[in-house]
Amino acid sequence: MNNSSNKKENHEQTGAAGQTPVTVIGLGMMGSALAEAFLKAGHPTTVWNRSAEKADALVAKGAILVASPAEAVSASPLIVVCVLDYEAVHEIMGPAGGLLAGRTVMNLTNGKPEQARKAAKWAAEQGADYLDGGIMAVPQMIAGPEAFLLYSGSLEAFETYRRELDVLGASNYLGEDAGLAAFYDLALLSAMYGMFGGFYHAVALVGTEKVEASAFTALVVPWLQAMLASLPLQAQAMDANVHATDVSSLYINKIGFVNLIEASQEQGISTELVAPLQALVDRAVAEGYGADGLSRLAGLLKKPK
Amino acid sequence: MNNSSNKKENHEQTGAAGQTPVTVIGLGMMGSALAEAFLKAGHPTTVWNRSAEKADALVAKGAILVASPAEAVSASPLIVVCVLDYEAVHEIMGPAGGLLAGRTVMNLTNGKPEQARKAAKWAAEQGADYLDGGIMAVPQMIAGPEAFLLYSGSLEAFETYRRELDVLGASNYLGEDAGLAAFYDLALLSAMYGMFGGFYHAVALVGTEKVEASAFTALVVPWLQAMLASLPLQAQAMDANVHATDVSSLYINKIGFVNLIEASQEQGISTELVAPLQALVDRAVAEGYGADGLSRLAGLLKKPK
Ligand SMILES: NC(=O)c1ccc[n+]([C@@H]2O[C@H](COP(=O)([O-])OP(=O)(O)OC[C@H]3O[C@@H](n4cnc5c(N)ncnc54)[C@H](OP(=O)(O)O)[C@@H]3O)[C@@H](O)[C@H]2O)c1
Ligand SMILES: NC(=O)c1ccc[n+]([C@@H]2O[C@H](COP(=O)([O-])OP(=O)(O)OC[C@H]3O[C@@H](n4cnc5c(N)ncnc54)[C@H](OP(=O)(O)O)[C@@H]3O)[C@@H](O)[C@H]2O)c1
Repeated sequence: MNNSSNKKENHEQTGAAGQTPVTVIGLGMMGSALAEAFLKAGHPTTVWNRSAEKADALVAKGAILVASPAEAVSASPLIVVCVLDYEAVHEIMGPAGGLLAGRTVMNLTNGKPEQARKAAKWAAEQGADYLDGGIMAVPQMIAGPEAFLLYSGSLEAFETYRRELDVLGASNYLGEDAGLAAFYDLALLSAMYGMFGGFYHAVALVGTEKVEASAFTALVVPWLQAMLASLPLQAQAMDANVHATDVSSLYINKIGFVNLIEASQEQGISTELVAPLQALVDRAVAEGYGADGLSRLAGLLKKPK
Repeated sequence: MNNSSNKKENHEQTGAAGQTPVTVIGLGMMGSALAEAFLKAGHPTTVWNRSAEKADALVAKGAILVASPAEAVSASPLIVVCVLDYEAVHEIMGPAGGLLAGRTVMNLTNGKPEQARKAAKWAAEQGADYLDGGIMAVPQMIAGPEAFLLYSGSLEAFETYRRELDVLGASNYLGEDAGLAAFYDLALLSAMYGMFGGFYHAVALVGTEKVEASAFTALVVPWLQAMLASLPLQAQAMDANVHATDVSSLYINKIGFVNLIEASQEQGISTELVAPLQALVDRAVAEGYGADGLSRLAGLLKKPK
């Protein structure tokens, strides 16, 4: 598997084009997209995956498949890791720790800020630079105009490999605290999940009258697009903690929720995703915020319920 | 208040411009925006509100304020009603029922399909045409390019007053069943609430590290915009009931949720809005759908939990 003549060819190619060799560890849906982007950008790309067969398509496009994480680490100064979770990261990288000195580990595996900080500490102990990243894109968006990635940890690593990072999407550096990227990443994910959840409820609701999801989506997309435009104004209200509204009051939204929940129940679908939103609006009104706008709600999440 | 010389002036104006007189009942945030749009478009606009002072700004712009719903009904062939709820609609319109014959009631009050159907029946008994509507806009968007309204009920009314309806925003007629507009309206609202809820959780989460909502929103808006683009593909998967994915599996999202929920708990914020989404993903994985994409989730809401 570790085809050394292939490797040499690639090293020569590198010299010529001056492209940094990159290693990608983890060839799931996302890791494969990352490796492909590096290949397309002309980087000698070494790959490793627990299940080797996932590398086939990439090898056909010029990737160098190696047989072990240790070989993968040895192949490049920049090691990109994108696997299931941090447990897998440590399982894979642990045995190769001794080879990391002088290299940069860029971990794009989703995790918690604490996990990123611990990984940064471990990498430092191996003499490696550590950059943690959050990928704000699906695999199909990688290297496209809408993909952006969040980075935190070693500023030096970010600056040294800026050109390589930019291959994947727009690069945003958040700070030296390695946990920051995960922190923002998880927050952005929660916004996405909320939007998706609302959409699923909506589709389930119209589905009870045999409306196709695709037909309905033609209404949902422009609607959410328009409502998205309200977020900056809501954010301003939150930052100022001034929730007076000329848009719509929590009280009128409370009525809207009664209609939404009752209609959902009458149509026989689950209200599990919308009932907690109703409870939050009701709580806000009960606490005396009925005349305020929706922006009031974020503050009510500040304490565990 | 019921300034009859004002009224006459306006009737003359009508004759000249050929603009249909319109009545707006209910001058809350939304009703005021509707009345203002009709005024701006040159319609003689008669208004009534329980609290008369809310008409002041509109009267200054040429609206005719009347003292009772009965006078309001008598003033125009098209009566637009936009108040708190259906109870208020019936309270206001009930006593004026005898004056409705030959007129059209366009009810833009948010409600359930059943309520719209009952109102249509009642209007028919008064000899009136009934059109139910859902306003997919906030007041500030009325008469602007992004506002759209959903209509159902009398097709004849829709066609007769199409020009007037178009003053408020793009007009979508859904069918003769008066309940349809409310049905779609509530579904679209649930999608909006889901998106807002996800945003509130995200803001609460980053707020624990003193990140301002406005700064964060600069990341959220392009992120949600990009994720919004995935809805049509998800909808196709739902319609075909084929949930194989090359984007991301429910299993990988399950891991993401563990990170999101634990990080939220560690930061001391409420998980009330995201925990139900996690439970849904976990249920999907437990039911054997781990390899499927997120589109699988909508179908799991088909039955009450
Ligand atoms: N897909 C997306 O849309 C997306 C978007 C943003 C971020 N992400 C993040 O990217 C990361 C990867 O996601 P994905 O969608 O690529 O997931 P995936 O398709 O399920 O791939 C998971 C990868 O992890 C590997 N793995 C799992 N357990 C392992 C272990 N114990 N030892 C070695 N390797 C192990 C798998 O190897 P095998 O092939 O041998 O199973 C595979 O390469 C996740 O952190 C995810 O949150 C994904
Ligand atoms: N605001 C939005 O963004 C928005 C968007 C789409 C749809 N809508 C829908 O538009 C409708 C009105 O919303 P809004 O935002 O304008 O609410 P609002 O500002 O709270 O106004 C409520 C209106 O209802 C009247 N009202 C309440 N109870 C009444 C009663 N028993 N008898 C007579 N009048 C009564 C109020 O009269 P007083 O002034 O005397 O209290 C006021 O005119 C709702 O169905 C809402 O869902 C609103």
